[in-house]
Amino acid sequence: MNSVINFRAELEKVTDYWSPRVVGRINDQYVKVAKLKGEFVWHKHDEEDELFFIVKGKLVIRYEDGAVTLNEGEFHIVPKGVMHNPVADEECWIALIEPVATRHTGDVVTERTKSIEEQIGASSG
Amino acid sequence: MNSVINFRAELEKVTDYWSPRVVGRINDQYVKVAKLKGEFVWHKHDEEDELFFIVKGKLVIRYEDGAVTLNEGEFHIVPKGVMHNPVADEECWIALIEPVATRHTGDVVTERTKSIEEQIGASSG
Repeated sequence: MNSVINFRAELEKVTDYWSPRVVGRINDQYVKVAKLKGEFVWHKHDEEDELFFIVKGKLVIRYEDGAVTLNEGEFHIVPKGVMHNPVADEECWIALIEPVATRHTGDVVTERTKSIEEQIGASSG
Repeated sequence: MNSVINFRAELEKVTDYWSPRVVGRINDQYVKVAKLKGEFVWHKHDEEDELFFIVKGKLVIRYEDGAVTLNEGEFHIVPKGVMHNPVADEECWIALIEPVATRHTGDVVTERTKSIEEQIGASSG
């Protein structure tokens, strides 16, 4: 995966919302891209921080005590152990960086949870 | 540092070339920004991959057996242990992600080497 990766070009290939694709690995972290629309699910990652970077659009990350709004070119790091829920009123294109051990929906498993095998497999599709 | 960070806004504050500023931390990695112009120094990081993301401009990363060219919106991961030398013919704005243990010029120390204290201190200036 040590080539040159263009976030927008990778995101143009993505057809499903809330289905991250692995596009790189740096040390023990994956770099992923995802298209988001609507509301995800409340969850947390007990041991891992998670970086959200906005490639296109706008994303709100809700916390139990507030929210942050991210616009194109901005990033935000969700601290480990903190409940959060990403919400995109309109389609939003993001890049994520998170440890290889991170599970998609953290400490909860729902019908929307994608396994890491799905996330890696999707990247070559 | 768990706020919203805009790469361009952070880079507008940077006055020196080749002087990374820490703008975030995700797990055991720092997120940094830097302005580059000209040629850096040949070096490697024995144990750490290093991610280069281009915010503005163009960057060539020379390897001993070739080079990659990165344009705005693209990223590239330099694998650990591999000699490389970033070169920017024109001013280039980048974001970097690398482990907190990574030293600026890897296994070599030159008059251009910035300590991590300089990189963190600069971010609040």
